[in-house]
Amino acid sequence: MNDNAKQIALHTQAMIEAGRMFHSRGWVPATGGNFSVKLSSDQVLITASGWHKGELAADGFLVAGLDGKPLDATRKASYETLLHMQLYQHDSKIGAALHTHSIANTVLSRRHSKIRLAGYELLKLLPGINTHDAEVSVPVFANDQDIARLAAHVDEHMKQHPETPAYLIAGHGLYAWGANVAQARHRVEALEFMFECELWSEKK
Amino acid sequence: MNDNAKQIALHTQAMIEAGRMFHSRGWVPATGGNFSVKLSSDQVLITASGWHKGELAADGFLVAGLDGKPLDATRKASYETLLHMQLYQHDSKIGAALHTHSIANTVLSRRHSKIRLAGYELLKLLPGINTHDAEVSVPVFANDQDIARLAAHVDEHMKQHPETPAYLIAGHGLYAWGANVAQARHRVEALEFMFECELWSEKK
Amino acid sequence: MNDNAKQIALHTQAMIEAGRMFHSRGWVPATGGNFSVKLSSDQVLITASGWHKGELAADGFLVAGLDGKPLDATRKASYETLLHMQLYQHDSKIGAALHTHSIANTVLSRRHSKIRLAGYELLKLLPGINTHDAEVSVPVFANDQDIARLAAHVDEHMKQHPETPAYLIAGHGLYAWGANVAQARHRVEALEFMFECELWSEKK
Amino acid sequence: MNDNAKQIALHTQAMIEAGRMFHSRGWVPATGGNFSVKLSSDQVLITASGWHKGELAADGFLVAGLDGKPLDATRKASYETLLHMQLYQHDSKIGAALHTHSIANTVLSRRHSKIRLAGYELLKLLPGINTHDAEVSVPVFANDQDIARLAAHVDEHMKQHPETPAYLIAGHGLYAWGANVAQARHRVEALEFMFECELWSEKK
Repeated sequence: MNDNAKQIALHTQAMIEAGRMFHSRGWVPATGGNFSVKLSSDQVLITASGWHKGELAADGFLVAGLDGKPLDATRKASYETLLHMQLYQHDSKIGAALHTHSIANTVLSRRHSKIRLAGYELLKLLPGINTHDAEVSVPVFANDQDIARLAAHVDEHMKQHPETPAYLIAGHGLYAWGANVAQARHRVEALEFMFECELWSEKK
Repeated sequence: MNDNAKQIALHTQAMIEAGRMFHSRGWVPATGGNFSVKLSSDQVLITASGWHKGELAADGFLVAGLDGKPLDATRKASYETLLHMQLYQHDSKIGAALHTHSIANTVLSRRHSKIRLAGYELLKLLPGINTHDAEVSVPVFANDQDIARLAAHVDEHMKQHPETPAYLIAGHGLYAWGANVAQARHRVEALEFMFECELWSEKK
Repeated sequence: MNDNAKQIALHTQAMIEAGRMFHSRGWVPATGGNFSVKLSSDQVLITASGWHKGELAADGFLVAGLDGKPLDATRKASYETLLHMQLYQHDSKIGAALHTHSIANTVLSRRHSKIRLAGYELLKLLPGINTHDAEVSVPVFANDQDIARLAAHVDEHMKQHPETPAYLIAGHGLYAWGANVAQARHRVEALEFMFECELWSEKK
Repeated sequence: MNDNAKQIALHTQAMIEAGRMFHSRGWVPATGGNFSVKLSSDQVLITASGWHKGELAADGFLVAGLDGKPLDATRKASYETLLHMQLYQHDSKIGAALHTHSIANTVLSRRHSKIRLAGYELLKLLPGINTHDAEVSVPVFANDQDIARLAAHVDEHMKQHPETPAYLIAGHGLYAWGANVAQARHRVEALEFMFECELWSEKK
């Protein structure tokens, strides 16, 4: 296997395992969720449409250009591919992006226009944070089946708020990212944990 | 193995795995729940009575006619077999039906006469829905130990409301379906996820 | 292996697997819980003291007489052995008894002197019930470190209320039983499921 | 393998398995949590920084002196190493310490300055308690990125309250201990179970 194919195999395995972990938590219900890794400045490896993200295999992925179109025109990329591309174009340091649906992130995103998280030790997993004594704001965007329009809306917000650590789509889920799959996955875990704490706190 | 036996083996395996996944979520408690696949216009493959649906094996299934009676008269079909038959007779496109019990669907069905689900991205898994900006109504039927009577009641409702995406039996559980086990299973996951979101939302 | 040893091996395996399933649900925390099977009119096979019930092995069990004392005097039986013996002496049809701790049964038993369960399909798993349109009352006994006294108290109640399907010890857990481990385990699943539904219902 | 290496291998395996169990419960999210075992009066074996504690392997551990510094200066010890050292210096009977993050312990520690637990059978897992009819107070310390200062604060409290069975850091998690990993792990399970019961009880 040449270097390129070896890299793809490693990224594929990392995303397959992240998907299994998320599935054990109930964070990739039905065929919801999608994952990607940046391969180069103009190519990404992304989950294919219709696959259950907790039961991925090597052929559950495809390579697409930054316009979101699969290199192999017979393949069908994830419906939300443009949201992944927006992240890679926004910040060249982003190497992987993961999208999850959880009960907590779905319920909270239907109630609020942004989720404020403060005073949690796990905030230290988020970009630019090195203390629990911090506060982040996770924006909630209205859902939109016109993905290009939604991606433009997200991009506008992130240009105005470069400190945005992740975002939510109302009634739909979380988008989180990192330099690689491991960092992105740890951020998903930290955010989903804090969202669940917030959900319990709103009950009081 | 001839073609027919091979088909049965594939359907059996799909239902065994769906059962294991549901069991990991707590959706097939004790011996609750039941699964079926349509084999032909007059035969179905259905889970046998008394088996724990999270621990099925090949002999946990039997073939029955559309009247609900097992071909092998020594076998005992699932108690709710007629509810599966009603679905196959109602719509020839239905190829598989799955029945699950979850905390969320049991609690909600004891409180309401129907469950309205709106604004969820996962609605797109349901028949005829292609946007989150939709609304479905999942009817709740009173439980009834006379299964023939309950099946007739369900059938009457579905003839009047052909858009019914799934239904609940109060204090008993969910019936969902699809063209095959995979689609039916994804719909169960999507519905159970949305029911759990609704359960949390009713707390507020 | 002679017949007796083969029987013990089968019972041991059934209890090991029940323990693993309960552990996956969080129903045997720390070294809490205990399981037994009646071997004959004067001998029972019961979990040994100090073993984590989700991680049992063949040497995690011992044989005891109906007075609760291990045949092998060097072994230490489960602290609550007399509660198991009370059941076998109360009703000769009982062949297995399982004790679990769950969040739901612990919270509910600290709030109430009895738990009424009505209208659930899963009631049909309990002794003498063949319809959802039924009602059972699960008594809650105050906890007591004098197990002989607690067993006598339970026995007095069960003689007055022979229809008792299971019981709770406040802040401590559930005792359920059946003709064999499978039936007892299914009853535990059904009861824990209904308790969790009740816990959610009390929130409203 | 000599005796010392054999001991380290056993302790490592115990902590790897404890981590997997905690991960299945969601108690070691992202790279949160850390575990240690006392090797001698001046050496401890502790989890390395940055490892996911649910996915540990043999090289995820390092040996450190009681000042918290790794013997191998190229390694990076867990950020909270001084909290582990405080415990070993406070009480020579402590042989292992485990730190977990759970939804329950995070939510409760953000609301209260101490958590009172009374009337639970599982209290018997805690040091010095042999009945459910007891009461313990789990102190909550404010979080602090200056770990040396936090450790000093904890130490002062434990000298005044030697009966302290475990402690919480607000919005951060639980520290529990025992003579060995098994006892510490059972205490974590018992405490996390009781915290979850308390969280449900605060909802009423």
